[in-house]
Amino acid sequence: MKKIEPGPLLAQVNNPSDLKKLSQEDLYQFCQELRDFIISSVSVNGGHFGASLGVVELTTAIHYVFNTPHDQLVWDVGHQAYGHKIITERRENFHTNRVYKGLSGFPKRSESEYDTFGVGHSSTSISAAVGMAVASGYNKDNRNVIAVIGDGAMTGGLAFEALNHGGWEKANMLVVLNDNNMSIDPNVGALKDYLTDITTSHTYNKLRDESWKLLGKLKNIGPKAQKLAGKIELALTAASKPGMLFEALGFRYFGPVDGHDINHLVRLMDDLKDIPGPKLLHCITVKGKGYELAEKNQTKWHAPGLFDKLTGEILKPKIDKPQPPKYQDVFGHSIIELAKQDEKVMGVTPAMPSGCSLKYMLAEMPDRSFDVGIAEQHAVTFSAGLATQGLKPFCNIYSTFMQRAYDQVIHDVAIQKLPVIFCLDRAGLAGADGATHQGAFDLAYFRCIPEMVVSAPMNESELRNLMFTATKWEKGPFSIRYPRGRGVMVDWQTPFEQIEVGTGRKLNDGEDVAILTIGHPGNFAQDAIKELESEGIYPAHYDMRFVKPLDEAMLEEIFSKFKKVITVEDGAIQGGFGSAVIEWMVDHGYASKVVRLGVPDRFIDHGTQKQLWKECGYDSDAIIEAVKDMVTAKVVAG
Amino acid sequence: MKKIEPGPLLAQVNNPSDLKKLSQEDLYQFCQELRDFIISSVSVNGGHFGASLGVVELTTAIHYVFNTPHDQLVWDVGHQAYGHKIITERRENFHTNRVYKGLSGFPKRSESEYDTFGVGHSSTSISAAVGMAVASGYNKDNRNVIAVIGDGAMTGGLAFEALNHGGWEKANMLVVLNDNNMSIDPNVGALKDYLTDITTSHTYNKLRDESWKLLGKLKNIGPKAQKLAGKIELALTAASKPGMLFEALGFRYFGPVDGHDINHLVRLMDDLKDIPGPKLLHCITVKGKGYELAEKNQTKWHAPGLFDKLTGEILKPKIDKPQPPKYQDVFGHSIIELAKQDEKVMGVTPAMPSGCSLKYMLAEMPDRSFDVGIAEQHAVTFSAGLATQGLKPFCNIYSTFMQRAYDQVIHDVAIQKLPVIFCLDRAGLAGADGATHQGAFDLAYFRCIPEMVVSAPMNESELRNLMFTATKWEKGPFSIRYPRGRGVMVDWQTPFEQIEVGTGRKLNDGEDVAILTIGHPGNFAQDAIKELESEGIYPAHYDMRFVKPLDEAMLEEIFSKFKKVITVEDGAIQGGFGSAVIEWMVDHGYASKVVRLGVPDRFIDHGTQKQLWKECGYDSDAIIEAVKDMVTAKVVAG
Repeated sequence: MKKIEPGPLLAQVNNPSDLKKLSQEDLYQFCQELRDFIISSVSVNGGHFGASLGVVELTTAIHYVFNTPHDQLVWDVGHQAYGHKIITERRENFHTNRVYKGLSGFPKRSESEYDTFGVGHSSTSISAAVGMAVASGYNKDNRNVIAVIGDGAMTGGLAFEALNHGGWEKANMLVVLNDNNMSIDPNVGALKDYLTDITTSHTYNKLRDESWKLLGKLKNIGPKAQKLAGKIELALTAASKPGMLFEALGFRYFGPVDGHDINHLVRLMDDLKDIPGPKLLHCITVKGKGYELAEKNQTKWHAPGLFDKLTGEILKPKIDKPQPPKYQDVFGHSIIELAKQDEKVMGVTPAMPSGCSLKYMLAEMPDRSFDVGIAEQHAVTFSAGLATQGLKPFCNIYSTFMQRAYDQVIHDVAIQKLPVIFCLDRAGLAGADGATHQGAFDLAYFRCIPEMVVSAPMNESELRNLMFTATKWEKGPFSIRYPRGRGVMVDWQTPFEQIEVGTGRKLNDGEDVAILTIGHPGNFAQDAIKELESEGIYPAHYDMRFVKPLDEAMLEEIFSKFKKVITVEDGAIQGGFGSAVIEWMVDHGYASKVVRLGVPDRFIDHGTQKQLWKECGYDSDAIIEAVKDMVTAKVVAG
Repeated sequence: MKKIEPGPLLAQVNNPSDLKKLSQEDLYQFCQELRDFIISSVSVNGGHFGASLGVVELTTAIHYVFNTPHDQLVWDVGHQAYGHKIITERRENFHTNRVYKGLSGFPKRSESEYDTFGVGHSSTSISAAVGMAVASGYNKDNRNVIAVIGDGAMTGGLAFEALNHGGWEKANMLVVLNDNNMSIDPNVGALKDYLTDITTSHTYNKLRDESWKLLGKLKNIGPKAQKLAGKIELALTAASKPGMLFEALGFRYFGPVDGHDINHLVRLMDDLKDIPGPKLLHCITVKGKGYELAEKNQTKWHAPGLFDKLTGEILKPKIDKPQPPKYQDVFGHSIIELAKQDEKVMGVTPAMPSGCSLKYMLAEMPDRSFDVGIAEQHAVTFSAGLATQGLKPFCNIYSTFMQRAYDQVIHDVAIQKLPVIFCLDRAGLAGADGATHQGAFDLAYFRCIPEMVVSAPMNESELRNLMFTATKWEKGPFSIRYPRGRGVMVDWQTPFEQIEVGTGRKLNDGEDVAILTIGHPGNFAQDAIKELESEGIYPAHYDMRFVKPLDEAMLEEIFSKFKKVITVEDGAIQGGFGSAVIEWMVDHGYASKVVRLGVPDRFIDHGTQKQLWKECGYDSDAIIEAVKDMVTAKVVAG
């Protein structure tokens, strides 16, 4: 956490009112200073990088022209809002960005009145803005509403639903389309091609200019020709107008314009401010603008970690011994192995090829792996379509984003018992991205779905075996959840072994107390047990592996033997794994004392995973404490 | 259940192979017979009506031209697939449509190999079809894939996500856009206007024809003019081409064509069959086509119930005494009362104004109520946008459709503690629509969301009071779930009373056994108790009213007094209300015997609600049985 010194103009600007005091001529310099501040700050404190650099001028223009916070500015996704935060009263605290108890990496209503709508997930901004614009019309409080959305986020169905409704309502709002041709990875989809066509081809414009010259001549021929020329002109105007897609949805299209020309942007916004109804301004920007390396390798520099801003060297923490791999890489490499063994295996990701490491398969087997864009719903139903044809798709979606495809999982996959394999990356507390990105709910929301297998591996080898087992499972969907970050096995490339679905593993025999874990927190329990054993306390430990179906024989053993049970999960305890265990216990007439450790019933803000595991009370220290409490507790049977 | 006699041509057709034996001249007559069969059948057996009449010719043409079931035909939503079912080996059983244990009212994979993708919810067909088309390319099995989707379903974001991906993949598929300008209610949204423009205005075509005449003359002027004329022609072609929206997404657009001209459709499909890549055929149809009354009042005749097919008189069951109202109407009328008292109250529905009865408010207060189209995600985030501006939106979404907006509820509403009021109509087992429409999961999937109030009224008066209470609740989201169908109070318009959030009602003191219910099944418990009391058994009954927050004082009372507890809910018992009760019990060191009645861990097919409540074991008979079992059971403490 290092504070960065602002340049002289930026130093004068604590809020948009200060910004408005600058002359328009100063804005170019101001943008340079803002950009430098972001580069310096991210280089030493980390965070998202390229996205915010790409919207420095847009951010400045909007706050310069519009009357924020009275006017409502909504950022889509929000990892591009660093400039916005710096301009809106948070420069002094910006070094705490994404740090435990510090500023959030995304706009957040509780943090600032300038953050009108909390984000983190994609494609919500237009929808929220339509609500705000309609409300402003009803409240007659004369607010401008501006949504800034990337071309990647525009592929999410929610954005389209919102355009369709906003255009119909004639909502008084401005959508700024921040077109940089990127999501985290290069953007995909037909819309991208369409936008590129608009941007790169000047065919239409040239044609229109030449034609008008000719039409001028035509008008001299006679009244009939003149009338016809008028009509042709009309048709040509339509034909030569880009942005028909948005016009079709009721939005007046403006652009494309250079999203880095601050003075032009200010003039444009000033004009647009006074045009009523739904408007879309198409801005071409460069992700990473102003930092050459980031412009050249945009995926790598989306969130590069710490780096030397002069040399561009990315500073990796020094590692003195081999590290276990990230779970995502175990997935990314193992799916290729499985695909080589089984020609039916396919891979699907909604715009997260780097994040979930499907990128390796996309490079090696492009005909068998698919990045469908930011479109979680489609990722699932597309996978269902593949499965109807006898294929075995692995559909990899972060736990928090799986919330966006919940109905598709139920309606298109589970009801039809289609063998789609869901890999839920970033399950459990995901860390610095905060409340919007915690994968806290999947165990609860998947567990109630009939036909669904719900599993979680405790380590790399288990992940590989669950993936392998899933390819052999033909009865219906199979889900595997695993956390962000590294596993525990340096030598992780173990041979595939098939697991009997619905069976756990007993890791420690013990006395008095049994610890039941699901997934990665099994390692916390192992650490705890080592410590406890040194103090003469010997709890049993069961890695249950499956939340559904539960290993009933194992539960029979546990509850007939132990009157004291602790469950540990990296997810919400309401309705989660521990809840499944006590449902079974009560259904089967047992009445052990059970303590459930996991994510409590509140949204968990950002921090490192370790900080959050501790805060939520299920790291190894917390398990040690729970076991000791249990050991000393009297069991009062009901 | 009355079997209908088919006409002479239809009688010869049991499957598409039979259909192909008919001459093309016979198809007109065949379509009339198919239409008559549907009219006769629905008039005496009930079901969806208008949608299937509108696609008689499309259905016939597709099965006549394509090689189903090798070619994959996917119906969107599927309530228009009666003709399809009749043609594909199910005419003989069609009188069992939507009857318990009979045919499903929607396409269903387990029912027929012709039903390639199960549906019920909207906007899934293109997405599944992209998966099928991609798989067919990979499998090299040379299948055509056809998705039939209505203009209403096209507003769902999933459809757009799928077009964007399908166009990009250059998937070999045909989308048939069945444009009848309707959802169940008249369609809304900018897209609808766009499609109407294409259909009704011939401006472009006329212009093009006239211009081409002129351009012909121009070409004689000289080589430069000739070249320019060519370019203008190109521009005009683009300008005069409708369907630019779809072309922008990579689909070749064909149409608009008359969707009732069977011979033209057959010729067109025959041509399209041989054109590779993504194609969209825009067909104009009339919902209810061929039955005049249905054409004139399409919402009423979407699913009219039984009727006299000659007179069109809708046959209502004879009622000898006043009936309690439907819950949906209690909502529909009460929200208007609340809106009159509180200017901040607004109403939002995604395309269900008739189904949820927001139609009354839409008629009376059009500036305060919104039908946003088939767009559940947007309905929620739009409501969140309204709430940021101090308004109090009631967002009414069927329980089963709320699955489609799960992330929006978490990410856009709950994290931000926005006071959006969710009314979940059709919660619990919804009846004849079957597995896709059961509202079984909402208690489980809402209960794990922090900040969310989860409530359910036992009767009309309670619904009104919960709605009133919700308008006073400013801490965050508030959900109210209630079932399909009628309540229990003839005099339901009771004065609003504010309820303390998180408090239940004790309805019966009792001994030995306590019954805890949530929502409408409280009435089943009351019926059971009357019966039991006549046999000298006196269970206590608590209507808990809130699943979250639970009434902890009441639970303290219950578990300190009762060693035998039954929970009853109209929803999945995995993670549901009963699960919340036992979580509390175990957390607080109680160990009563608890039996949870509710929907078991499987998908529940169609039937009447009474049949399904019985099947699932939580109607009053089942409660009586459970109480008797409990009374005689020994309680074995753990």
